[in-house]
Amino acid sequence: MGVYLDHAATTPMLPEAIDAYARAMSEVGNPSSIHSAGQNARRLLEEARETVAASLGCDPIEVVFTSGGTEAINLALKGGFWAATAASPARRRLVVPNGEHHATLDTVEWLVAHEGADVTWVGLDSEGFIETDAWAEALRGDDVALASALWVNNEVGTIEPVAELAAAAASASVPLHLDAVAAYGHVPISFRALGAAALSVSAHKIGGPVGIGALVLSRTARVVPTVHGGGQQRNVRSGTQDVAAAVSFAVAAQAAVASLEAERARLTALRDRLIAGVRAAVPEARLSGPSGNQRVASSAHFTFPGAQGDSLLFLLDAAGVAVSTGSACQAGIPEPSHVVLAMGRETGEASSCLRITLGRTTTDADVDAFLAALPDAYARAAKAGFTAR
Amino acid sequence: MGVYLDHAATTPMLPEAIDAYARAMSEVGNPSSIHSAGQNARRLLEEARETVAASLGCDPIEVVFTSGGTEAINLALKGGFWAATAASPARRRLVVPNGEHHATLDTVEWLVAHEGADVTWVGLDSEGFIETDAWAEALRGDDVALASALWVNNEVGTIEPVAELAAAAASASVPLHLDAVAAYGHVPISFRALGAAALSVSAHKIGGPVGIGALVLSRTARVVPTVHGGGQQRNVRSGTQDVAAAVSFAVAAQAAVASLEAERARLTALRDRLIAGVRAAVPEARLSGPSGNQRVASSAHFTFPGAQGDSLLFLLDAAGVAVSTGSACQAGIPEPSHVVLAMGRETGEASSCLRITLGRTTTDADVDAFLAALPDAYARAAKAGFTAR
Repeated sequence: MGVYLDHAATTPMLPEAIDAYARAMSEVGNPSSIHSAGQNARRLLEEARETVAASLGCDPIEVVFTSGGTEAINLALKGGFWAATAASPARRRLVVPNGEHHATLDTVEWLVAHEGADVTWVGLDSEGFIETDAWAEALRGDDVALASALWVNNEVGTIEPVAELAAAAASASVPLHLDAVAAYGHVPISFRALGAAALSVSAHKIGGPVGIGALVLSRTARVVPTVHGGGQQRNVRSGTQDVAAAVSFAVAAQAAVASLEAERARLTALRDRLIAGVRAAVPEARLSGPSGNQRVASSAHFTFPGAQGDSLLFLLDAAGVAVSTGSACQAGIPEPSHVVLAMGRETGEASSCLRITLGRTTTDADVDAFLAALPDAYARAAKAGFTAR
Repeated sequence: MGVYLDHAATTPMLPEAIDAYARAMSEVGNPSSIHSAGQNARRLLEEARETVAASLGCDPIEVVFTSGGTEAINLALKGGFWAATAASPARRRLVVPNGEHHATLDTVEWLVAHEGADVTWVGLDSEGFIETDAWAEALRGDDVALASALWVNNEVGTIEPVAELAAAAASASVPLHLDAVAAYGHVPISFRALGAAALSVSAHKIGGPVGIGALVLSRTARVVPTVHGGGQQRNVRSGTQDVAAAVSFAVAAQAAVASLEAERARLTALRDRLIAGVRAAVPEARLSGPSGNQRVASSAHFTFPGAQGDSLLFLLDAAGVAVSTGSACQAGIPEPSHVVLAMGRETGEASSCLRITLGRTTTDADVDAFLAALPDAYARAAKAGFTAR
């Protein structure tokens, strides 16, 4: 494999997390079974839940394991909306920034189209920060069912002012969901301190396995289940619980929290060298989002005037460097970034994005390789421009 | 570990499936990423999809990976109901046998309570067979959104007449979902031959990992997604796809199909020896469901007059033998089996159940150990009776 600078899409699993997974797979027992084999599986599962809870600053009983971040977000939003409207039929409005991940955007759009929800979209400023005045204003009124916001913007890397967003939601008595998928492992998270109703994370973004995530759900928050069945996990999320994935997730969570400060310092230095190198190599390149500590240490995001982002991506890939144009979840469909558009840029600029994201395995040599490959890739992509597609 | 006779709850993973999982976890790349690492992940994923499709007699494009059987069933029923009512608002009625797994029952009950669905419950006969005349009758009318049925009853082991059920649904032009979770690996499945709209399976019931399953969805079937987001898997099921789990699932699927006939013969002999042994040791015990080839080879289910099922379970567990009272999914809550009640038994009998299920690792010695432990467990459980709880 070449140089991998797409850690925000997915990051290599920690070897210890792979080992833990492989070991746990050899255990037998469904944690819902009441015989000894089942109870052994349950013990492993509940220990994993405790570790994951500690990494998020919440109680173990607040951790609902899901199949990943997307399912957690769907449960928070659909389940939270249904619970809110069941309790107060007039509460049908959602408050959501317009730079959210598609797991949120598409869920909100479905609730509007299918379940009679209303939505107030809250804007972003030019650096990707959620407009806090507009957020507070949108929360006013007795018709709000819930609010949801990204903690770290998954495309441009802006760290949102979540304490302020949470305080405004608390002051308006609106349940708040935080999408912490891109924040987890990169900024310290204390669910308890924030007072949010719910928070979503995914294991594979922190060196754990794909296929497991968690919705943290406060004791007072209510959601209608989105997966019905055997009544596992306090009846919030049915389905046989994945003990091996939970055990592996816990190993990655513990490691991510333990190394967070050291990795933050190390990645900030790498990232800032990368940013400076891009600016030196391609002066036209424009950094999206803030600089310094207001952006997540692992992420740089640029627009490259006159070049298609996906042309750049293909040319860099041919040179052995893997990066992204934005969220991997958009499944290879080249379209302008809704986040960059929300930040007030033109469609052309929003189609010329490159997201470079670093992780545990990233070295100085990786940054060097990217910077070495960039000028030629940019020259060729800019020459091809927007007509080549 | 002692003697494990609860393979229907979950069965040990195949060593080759563990190895495949561990190897695939070391690969890096999100299959939705368009760079080479992502495309390598996608290749592994699509090869796994082909193998799983071959094991189910369907086309690869019809396989939608989910987090397990429960999610697949939720997607088939909720998504199918929403799609049907969107196309024809008068189609709001579900046709469902009353001995289904809780993943179906609870989903149907939610659709009735929350989404305005109606339901016609179809009865079971005394051996757990779905009443085919009542099924055909229930399918009549222009108000049916969809029908759903178990292929193999997960508690009592009855193999349902799915060809007949499917023919009746086709003749009424009603989309049919089959819950094949308990059938997969035990009876040959050809989705193509049946003409059903959808079929659910889970990997961990056949020696694959927990945390992955599949909904087979015919090209003409329509479902509204239950998990919204990045648009993966033809927009039917969003969320980062779990390549390692899919690769491991494929290994287990291939092995299960390859060994099906040999295992069926081997397990039938073990099961029939177990049934004969129970009858000899406890003449009062009553087999639930049919005998011979009409019940799944891996399962025996008895009621033990005068004994609580969970007392029996605890006493056998203390003797080193793990069995179940019914579905593991009911999370340790002792209540009469709705399946046994649907078969016309009394509440007392439906609380005196023991399900003994065999699998790949089951040996003659396991059956001997169970038969050796049973008489004393039964004597003590019957002495405690129903008042001990």
